[in-house]
Amino acid sequence: MIMGELLDKINGPKDLHLLSVEELQLLAEEVREHITHSVSQTGGHLASNLGIVELTIAMHYVFNFKKDRLLWDVGHQCYAHKILTGRKEQFAGLRQREGISGFPNPAESEYDVFSVGHAGTSIATALGMALGSQQSGTDEKIVALVGDASIVNGLSFEALNNLGLAKRQLLIILNDNSMAIDVTQGAIARFLSKVRLSHTYEDIRRTTSNIIEHLPLIGKRMEDALENFKKTLRMAITRSRLFESLNIPYFGPVDGHDIASLISLFRAVSEFGHPAILHVYTKKGKGFTPAGDDPQRFHSTGPFKINGDETSVTKGGRTFTQAFSDALVEAAEADDRIIALTAAMPGGTGLTEFRERFPERCYDVGIAESVAVDIAAGMAKQGQKPVVCIYSTFLQRGYDQIFQEVCLQNLPVIFCIDRAGLVGSDGPTHHGLMDIGFLRGMPNLVITAPCCESEVKAALAFALSSDGPVAIRYPKDTVPNGDIEEKVCKVPFESGKSVTVRQSEGNVVLVALGSMLTEAVKAADKLAEMGIDVGVINARFAKPVDGEILALLDDNKTIITIEDHSLACGFGSAVLEQAAIRAAEGQTASEKTDRGQIIILGGPDKFIERAPRDAQLSEIGISAAKIVETVRNLPVR
Amino acid sequence: MIMGELLDKINGPKDLHLLSVEELQLLAEEVREHITHSVSQTGGHLASNLGIVELTIAMHYVFNFKKDRLLWDVGHQCYAHKILTGRKEQFAGLRQREGISGFPNPAESEYDVFSVGHAGTSIATALGMALGSQQSGTDEKIVALVGDASIVNGLSFEALNNLGLAKRQLLIILNDNSMAIDVTQGAIARFLSKVRLSHTYEDIRRTTSNIIEHLPLIGKRMEDALENFKKTLRMAITRSRLFESLNIPYFGPVDGHDIASLISLFRAVSEFGHPAILHVYTKKGKGFTPAGDDPQRFHSTGPFKINGDETSVTKGGRTFTQAFSDALVEAAEADDRIIALTAAMPGGTGLTEFRERFPERCYDVGIAESVAVDIAAGMAKQGQKPVVCIYSTFLQRGYDQIFQEVCLQNLPVIFCIDRAGLVGSDGPTHHGLMDIGFLRGMPNLVITAPCCESEVKAALAFALSSDGPVAIRYPKDTVPNGDIEEKVCKVPFESGKSVTVRQSEGNVVLVALGSMLTEAVKAADKLAEMGIDVGVINARFAKPVDGEILALLDDNKTIITIEDHSLACGFGSAVLEQAAIRAAEGQTASEKTDRGQIIILGGPDKFIERAPRDAQLSEIGISAAKIVETVRNLPVR
Repeated sequence: MIMGELLDKINGPKDLHLLSVEELQLLAEEVREHITHSVSQTGGHLASNLGIVELTIAMHYVFNFKKDRLLWDVGHQCYAHKILTGRKEQFAGLRQREGISGFPNPAESEYDVFSVGHAGTSIATALGMALGSQQSGTDEKIVALVGDASIVNGLSFEALNNLGLAKRQLLIILNDNSMAIDVTQGAIARFLSKVRLSHTYEDIRRTTSNIIEHLPLIGKRMEDALENFKKTLRMAITRSRLFESLNIPYFGPVDGHDIASLISLFRAVSEFGHPAILHVYTKKGKGFTPAGDDPQRFHSTGPFKINGDETSVTKGGRTFTQAFSDALVEAAEADDRIIALTAAMPGGTGLTEFRERFPERCYDVGIAESVAVDIAAGMAKQGQKPVVCIYSTFLQRGYDQIFQEVCLQNLPVIFCIDRAGLVGSDGPTHHGLMDIGFLRGMPNLVITAPCCESEVKAALAFALSSDGPVAIRYPKDTVPNGDIEEKVCKVPFESGKSVTVRQSEGNVVLVALGSMLTEAVKAADKLAEMGIDVGVINARFAKPVDGEILALLDDNKTIITIEDHSLACGFGSAVLEQAAIRAAEGQTASEKTDRGQIIILGGPDKFIERAPRDAQLSEIGISAAKIVETVRNLPVR
Repeated sequence: MIMGELLDKINGPKDLHLLSVEELQLLAEEVREHITHSVSQTGGHLASNLGIVELTIAMHYVFNFKKDRLLWDVGHQCYAHKILTGRKEQFAGLRQREGISGFPNPAESEYDVFSVGHAGTSIATALGMALGSQQSGTDEKIVALVGDASIVNGLSFEALNNLGLAKRQLLIILNDNSMAIDVTQGAIARFLSKVRLSHTYEDIRRTTSNIIEHLPLIGKRMEDALENFKKTLRMAITRSRLFESLNIPYFGPVDGHDIASLISLFRAVSEFGHPAILHVYTKKGKGFTPAGDDPQRFHSTGPFKINGDETSVTKGGRTFTQAFSDALVEAAEADDRIIALTAAMPGGTGLTEFRERFPERCYDVGIAESVAVDIAAGMAKQGQKPVVCIYSTFLQRGYDQIFQEVCLQNLPVIFCIDRAGLVGSDGPTHHGLMDIGFLRGMPNLVITAPCCESEVKAALAFALSSDGPVAIRYPKDTVPNGDIEEKVCKVPFESGKSVTVRQSEGNVVLVALGSMLTEAVKAADKLAEMGIDVGVINARFAKPVDGEILALLDDNKTIITIEDHSLACGFGSAVLEQAAIRAAEGQTASEKTDRGQIIILGGPDKFIERAPRDAQLSEIGISAAKIVETVRNLPVR
């Protein structure tokens, strides 16, 4: 572990006061080195963390976040914060099962307020905390740190629109590292970019000293100072008209790497008895050349080598994302009505190649999942074939839009849901364990889950030929090498039709959804070695449920459903519902009561902590080994 | 039916061209009379519809919405639109089962594009349609009509932020009737109000003629005209800095009741090859004095008498909303940490009295459900007891926030979910049939449903004493007269504990959730008359499911779950899951296979059209009569 001599002395934020401001600036370099070294071993978010070190030091120098409250947005940029708040040793275990989380986590430290991972929450929750303090009359400072990519989210905007409810201090630090500008060209991004381009470094220095001069710590005279400040700083203020029209006092832009100035600024602007925004410029990847040169590549990375340009990511096999990426490009070549949409995750959802090939048919709306869904709905109305590519956990933001604007209208919008299921080291905020549950209550929607590369392609073709909405879910995982059962996976997709992978004379049938087929087949092989013969079905559809699966119950079979999803409202739950409906209907005619049973395997009613994905599959009982165990424990096989 | 002589001639938008502009202005009066008369009979939205008649006439005069596309926001203000587009006769059947919907509905007319009811979707879907047309190169005009209350929603903002994606015509008409100003004091509302206050009627006339003069129909020279226009109209433009900072050309404000000017304006501003906003002032309740004087009262109304001030609403019994309202006020008197939050529905959710009594403890954030949830999360972190009051269907907008900011943090936020279940005449956009489904997959959350007034109070007390999040759901319905079974309803709430209402020696037990207990008890009475003895259980909790209910299966009982919710992912589904989990666990020890069965009653996998709520309960099989039928059809009772 690399730890400099200054960092050695810092065991908590208080210790920052042992250092001079010049030393704090040196400390920033040591923290950066610590982060770079650590992330090169463990993987994690790098570029944004390197850019925010000085800002983090200055915040902890000015505020006492044991009492004051710091709200992170998304939170993947909290590494320096973790290092300064007593977690520098644990930092080597970043994102590891026994180590610390890559996101803020109240279970780790009193300095972490909310466990977060989704964007746009910091201003909203900070406003709530400010209103809570307003009720109780307490005087802790509340600080929300939001990035330029998160502030464009609808939730951020709703919070900004309601900021006037707070009649007390609430500081919003807008950490502007041009993230949103890389990502998309929304109006806010363009506005911030214009502000940025119109400022020389000289301007920024002048703004900084102007704020500090005009906002001295004079307590109740602060309001007058604000008025004076506005008068003397006309230029900067007119540039802030966006926030001014929202009635939010705005200050900046200022240099986010100058600790001495930041300290003075934080002291000054946190003295108001009302909310205010401080706009700070930082540089992504600062201090580590490869990350500075290619911040997108080092936004979120696996382990890499630090020396020179030999930064190479450790690679696994071909992923579901890559399989989808190729399938989409191929389909798009044949049909120019196919349009891809994403919400700030073009790389993660496999759209990079599509965007290069069809730039006019690829839309990235920034971190704004709700509008991505609605734009797709509008496009589908006009006869296009929109494909919405959003991670399962982030699609939660589009729930209401999928319901009303897509399913109620029965529009042929396709949802390609990456990161569906357990995601490994990102932990509870990022698992995609609820999508079947939040989607399958919607009439008209069909939900499918491919098990391998052939099926990814076939599922997409099926969805593209459908007249209504279709969701395709697949995990953050590799596809099986070759087809699991070649002939089976090549069977064309038909709505609500499963495929029998392995016939059996025994009483037990494994019914696997999507990538779980791999585990089911492995389990069946293992069981066969033990002399236990079980059938295997590739369910393919979580909705509608295949009647053939339900018919197995008439033969007194035991069905074991296996899904990479919560048990609550999942695929197994759908099978239980349909079986109940079928039984109720059937029993009006016959009196059959001696029926098979259904065992459901999937996620329990609790949050699953970070760990390697394989370990998580095992933890919730859906790995091949756990399936074997379940079958062996059955009294009747 | 009152129909004036001009309206008599109008059988479709084309017919508007048979009239002179002066006659159109008279037509507006006739349409208003038709609306007022009709709504006085059927109930419906009144004030907003009376304010938008001239605007609607002018839109249909200028655009050809057979080809051009008109997107409504929320859509409850589409009555004049329906009357002008061939539905004036059917209008008498507004919101009735065999009549027309109170919202836009493509199934009714080619002039309705989206079936909507939630706010903030018009700009988003219009953007999608514009991008779709951009792909296909078609030239239809696209018009989004958004109100000042809807534009504050995060979804609207995300769409505005991405408006630059459209490189073609897209007209946003901002219908500003000060709705948002009545409702809340967000920054946008304040901004619009400032604009409004700073304009005399003279200004508005001048702005109107300025736009018309400077934006003649000169095709490709339009961009130059825009530049000229901006120069000559400095005053108005600086007032538009909110939209200007978002890079959206803005025009207005103009008078929304002057049809001649509106026609010229629509022609002018729809000639741009890019999106633009036209800001129009209208007066809610125009032409009907009681509605003009009290637009809130006439926003959504039951049938009323037209003459003078004798406007009285037909009243049913005491509602769940009223029961909750009183329970909350009583609780809040005893505990000043209780804070109520809503999203533009204080009246509908029963907060009127609370707000009068505790103005400092009541927050209305406007149509912004997501931030309402996050503010509550922040407040709970600070030790307050926030109670979030949102209709089931609108809470869908807060799904992700409930997951991450509330349940993942295990914060004691209380959700009081009104309109949970079938809502009658508002139809598919407004039913609350999915809340159990979208909530019960979230760890830490407890979901309860009271059956009567005593239980509303007890459920709230239970929630207030809980350390984690609790959702309380109840329907748009009256509470039973007195307690259903007094002793039973007074049993204190205990998490996941049901209450047996009626013991039975028979094989069948009705397990009713919430208000369904009334139907279950009625059914049991009826069955008793027929000599069939069934048990009745008040489930109280959809999550966790009471083990006592599951234990009935061991005695080979038939359980019939009854819920005012979709079968998909509902309470019955939860019972099935828990029974399956329990059976799987149990069977590892014993070999019990002869077990009871579970029949689930609830909503099917389709949208339920408008009809009286009673009829809807019967349609989905959860009325007392249908329960009786289900039991009688069982082979083993």
